[in-house]
Amino acid sequence: MIKFGVLGAGRIGKVHARTIAGSKQATVAYLADANAQAAAELAAEVGAKVASVEDIIKARDVDAILIATPTPTHADLIEAGSEAGKAVLCEKPVSMSVERIKACLKVVEQNSTNLMIGFNRRFDPNFASIEQRIRKGDVGEVEMVTVISRDPAPPPVDYVKSSGGLYRDMMIHDFDMARFLVGEEFVLVQALGAALVDPAIGKAGDVDTAAVQMQTASGKIAVITNSRRATYGYDQRVEVHGSKGMLSARNIQNTTVELANAQGIMGDPVLHFFTERYVDAYANEVKAFIDGLAKGVSARPNGFDGLQAQKLADAATMSWQTGKPVKPA
Amino acid sequence: MIKFGVLGAGRIGKVHARTIAGSKQATVAYLADANAQAAAELAAEVGAKVASVEDIIKARDVDAILIATPTPTHADLIEAGSEAGKAVLCEKPVSMSVERIKACLKVVEQNSTNLMIGFNRRFDPNFASIEQRIRKGDVGEVEMVTVISRDPAPPPVDYVKSSGGLYRDMMIHDFDMARFLVGEEFVLVQALGAALVDPAIGKAGDVDTAAVQMQTASGKIAVITNSRRATYGYDQRVEVHGSKGMLSARNIQNTTVELANAQGIMGDPVLHFFTERYVDAYANEVKAFIDGLAKGVSARPNGFDGLQAQKLADAATMSWQTGKPVKPA
Amino acid sequence: MIKFGVLGAGRIGKVHARTIAGSKQATVAYLADANAQAAAELAAEVGAKVASVEDIIKARDVDAILIATPTPTHADLIEAGSEAGKAVLCEKPVSMSVERIKACLKVVEQNSTNLMIGFNRRFDPNFASIEQRIRKGDVGEVEMVTVISRDPAPPPVDYVKSSGGLYRDMMIHDFDMARFLVGEEFVLVQALGAALVDPAIGKAGDVDTAAVQMQTASGKIAVITNSRRATYGYDQRVEVHGSKGMLSARNIQNTTVELANAQGIMGDPVLHFFTERYVDAYANEVKAFIDGLAKGVSARPNGFDGLQAQKLADAATMSWQTGKPVKPA
Amino acid sequence: MIKFGVLGAGRIGKVHARTIAGSKQATVAYLADANAQAAAELAAEVGAKVASVEDIIKARDVDAILIATPTPTHADLIEAGSEAGKAVLCEKPVSMSVERIKACLKVVEQNSTNLMIGFNRRFDPNFASIEQRIRKGDVGEVEMVTVISRDPAPPPVDYVKSSGGLYRDMMIHDFDMARFLVGEEFVLVQALGAALVDPAIGKAGDVDTAAVQMQTASGKIAVITNSRRATYGYDQRVEVHGSKGMLSARNIQNTTVELANAQGIMGDPVLHFFTERYVDAYANEVKAFIDGLAKGVSARPNGFDGLQAQKLADAATMSWQTGKPVKPA
Repeated sequence: MIKFGVLGAGRIGKVHARTIAGSKQATVAYLADANAQAAAELAAEVGAKVASVEDIIKARDVDAILIATPTPTHADLIEAGSEAGKAVLCEKPVSMSVERIKACLKVVEQNSTNLMIGFNRRFDPNFASIEQRIRKGDVGEVEMVTVISRDPAPPPVDYVKSSGGLYRDMMIHDFDMARFLVGEEFVLVQALGAALVDPAIGKAGDVDTAAVQMQTASGKIAVITNSRRATYGYDQRVEVHGSKGMLSARNIQNTTVELANAQGIMGDPVLHFFTERYVDAYANEVKAFIDGLAKGVSARPNGFDGLQAQKLADAATMSWQTGKPVKPA
Repeated sequence: MIKFGVLGAGRIGKVHARTIAGSKQATVAYLADANAQAAAELAAEVGAKVASVEDIIKARDVDAILIATPTPTHADLIEAGSEAGKAVLCEKPVSMSVERIKACLKVVEQNSTNLMIGFNRRFDPNFASIEQRIRKGDVGEVEMVTVISRDPAPPPVDYVKSSGGLYRDMMIHDFDMARFLVGEEFVLVQALGAALVDPAIGKAGDVDTAAVQMQTASGKIAVITNSRRATYGYDQRVEVHGSKGMLSARNIQNTTVELANAQGIMGDPVLHFFTERYVDAYANEVKAFIDGLAKGVSARPNGFDGLQAQKLADAATMSWQTGKPVKPA
Repeated sequence: MIKFGVLGAGRIGKVHARTIAGSKQATVAYLADANAQAAAELAAEVGAKVASVEDIIKARDVDAILIATPTPTHADLIEAGSEAGKAVLCEKPVSMSVERIKACLKVVEQNSTNLMIGFNRRFDPNFASIEQRIRKGDVGEVEMVTVISRDPAPPPVDYVKSSGGLYRDMMIHDFDMARFLVGEEFVLVQALGAALVDPAIGKAGDVDTAAVQMQTASGKIAVITNSRRATYGYDQRVEVHGSKGMLSARNIQNTTVELANAQGIMGDPVLHFFTERYVDAYANEVKAFIDGLAKGVSARPNGFDGLQAQKLADAATMSWQTGKPVKPA
Repeated sequence: MIKFGVLGAGRIGKVHARTIAGSKQATVAYLADANAQAAAELAAEVGAKVASVEDIIKARDVDAILIATPTPTHADLIEAGSEAGKAVLCEKPVSMSVERIKACLKVVEQNSTNLMIGFNRRFDPNFASIEQRIRKGDVGEVEMVTVISRDPAPPPVDYVKSSGGLYRDMMIHDFDMARFLVGEEFVLVQALGAALVDPAIGKAGDVDTAAVQMQTASGKIAVITNSRRATYGYDQRVEVHGSKGMLSARNIQNTTVELANAQGIMGDPVLHFFTERYVDAYANEVKAFIDGLAKGVSARPNGFDGLQAQKLADAATMSWQTGKPVKPA
């Protein structure tokens, strides 16, 4: 039985703690949150003890740390967990700073500990199926990957100000997805962006509508488009064009019900909330981590994947700011 | 060059005359219609001469007669054409009377002339593709055929009174489709019906909503449902379930455009008018007749197909009237 | 906290016990199964005690009985539970005998206890949405309901022999669905059937391919088609045609992924297993029962719904056997 | 009756000549082609006289010139037609040189003659519907336009060498589509490209796989992706995301037929040939020109549209060559 210490009892912490509690291979031994009540309630639900972050990391009867705390704490907690010899599953991103990520990964490497980064979308059954079928050869050689990602509604402007910007906060998932599907590193990044949804986002120095195109050394192309607002729901699609065919994944609607009348044929809107849309993805991600631990391997996406996505986010941000193509660090 | 005499310059007569005029193998030599102006206009358009029905049937330079006149004239005109040694393509039905059809077919048989009946839906590219794929083995052994057929709006009650009733006037197309797809004759017919769309149709002794299920001697089943009104357009679908798979054909919308917004995802309504929905079917039907003539064969659906569909329509009407299953004549 | 006694730890018993255990309003207090090991394992999983059926029914600390035992035991157990004053959620059917169901319902009525029957498909999010939208007026007046239901593969012939036949064992779900959607009772039933999938099923006196059409006193029509085998998965669709539009629910595929290549555009097969296809339906059913208990009402479908569906199954069986339309008892 | 002189009896010349011949407002009076036999055959079919290009342009009984000759002749012929006071419908592009186009448009302006450029895709019923609905307000303010365009198979390398390159030869249609849908001019163009389909195309100095993203002064973004090869047919899609919703147009398949079996659910491939895919677009384009003439207006897309698309094609080519964003001339 793998014993987890869960750091963070917020929205994602809850999702993950419940998945662990439901696993036959793992339990939540301890749980920490700055909000004592939230910690107590979730601990009661999943059968864990509340403890401090420090105690959890030190605890002898903890095998793995799940980090679902605010972003600025991630790198420190990963390092602390690694120093204590624990396997770590950390929500994305490791850090907003590529340098900080590199330093953190060095610690993990020195301790030879297991680190997985929570790019949950790799575990969405649709996108995971596409990746498996690419590797199986269903589309032959991959030539172009298209990732469309639109949130239902923009976050508060205050959040935007501290988020690192759309390319680092929102598109980072798509950078990881593009790498996941193309299977090569990108050497050139071109970004466009604008604040078309909310001028206040523009005043805050960010964009809410963005397009990025990237190319690998072998010439493969990825195109990513983002918007902070989609009236029809949480738009999450990918398409992979290759020498032998095209694989694509549509959005998911609440039901399959359609109403046909004189106005036309109408189906449900697209699922709105990310926890709903990616409910399977979150669960499969934690299962992959647990399976990895059981087999003694570090499951992908690992720290390197976190680093590479962050480099692309930085490159896109710089490309948008300078109006020039940027070669990722 | 196959020379046609076209009888009838109404809606369907026009469609067929234009197809013949556009063919490289055939021309419209003569054209007749009770409405002299309609005849003159269509004749001018397709490069034909206006003549009387009698003269056209006798004309030495006419190879084939296309009958698009009112239903009560069909059997007489088929016989006259056959006696004159002409090939005949006649709009459905040959007659509302099975006995009259039998007598007519006997004349055709005695003269060994070519007779095709205008069940246009066999030539719809979607349904024709399904039939070809059934014969190719795509669904293995056919077990159940489902035909859904709904008109956009009911005809005037006056028309209903002289139409022979829904089973003979509207469902006859579906009886032919069921025979076409199943490839066997039906030995048992069970019908339900009601006037749910318009009580006046009920008062006129007819139904506007109907379901029929039929079975062949080997046990294969066909299910047909009809309505005289569909708010979303002209609903025309078939589905064939067999031992190795299922083939189905959806409706056709005006465009592939979809609008996604907070209300859902909305596509265009289904095509509304039968001339629009079956534009290719009408053209392909005439081409098949012309091809048959060029090759010296009588194209299906032939007089026998017309007879069998009429028998099923009679059986369904009787089943609905008596509330009992009926074995077709 | 509502305390359940769960009778039966088989496939469905497990599904339901886990749903109860996951509820914040209910727990599984006791669990019984003829297979002691199965009982012990499931009891451990859901935190229940193993006990005998008799003891569970008598237990003072049991509020509700969930019956997931073999069909022949249902009516007796419902009566025992009712006599003990317990609320009962019983898997369909109450009994294969309409007389036995009537007697059982009389007992429930005399004791004024709560009885819900497990027609899970009413709780499928797609079908439930359709029913709610019918009541909301989305299709106006319902005129025709079509239910298509095909199993992925036929059961063993031995099962068929004791199943009561396709109309009672399989189509019973569709009879309930038709009543649920039409909202009226059917007064006429016409059935066709054949053993096309497996001749051994025919030798066992049953059919594997069937069509039933039914009509209400007001003329509304329902058409149900069944097959014991569908190569493409578990085919579960409904369509409701009304005066203002049509509502339909498609099948559910494993993913939304499509592969486009020279062969065409291919999506995943339809979900294969009923536990997978109806995972939400089973959970929602138990939740509805629990909600009903919390509010002190007997949730639908209740014993009367169970009785009516059984009458339709009997009528269809008789119609198939006699070749005549049958008025349900 | 508008009298046309048709220059060019090749693939597109034929399509257009037949559309004109089928119009009630226009006829093909004269027809020219370097290939005398091709000219004679098409002239016979559409009821025209064969004549030389020079004589057609001079002919008093010619109102309009349709130019379907090789690209290098377009600008000269437009000028000649304009000098002779004829209305001109010319296949895209006017010229590969922006300077040459400008000179040509000056001549047209000086003569105040009517010039339409054959960007046929604007007249595809799907894309035309999207544009009309944008103007109607269905998506609110347009924020992002995505155009996906893939040919079924690459042209011969010899053609590629003289084509001006993918951005000018193939993507030019998409530049026009992006302008058509966004309704603003683009001020920034970023291009990526690679020869992934056929290395010989790369050796010829061109690309076969390309992505371009562009932005207008107000911040609106267009993303275009191209491939010279798609295994599944002629991939032609657009998607418009705006403040109130998203409009999209799918590909068109040969039939609506689907086969469901254990492998999945398979539909037909996408239509393969551009003449087939855009059969309505070509006809509607000529009708729009004829309607414009009848009303005395120059239908869009006009010479200015041809110029702007060429500027974007040049900018994209330069961006790809230099690796830098380019501001169109």
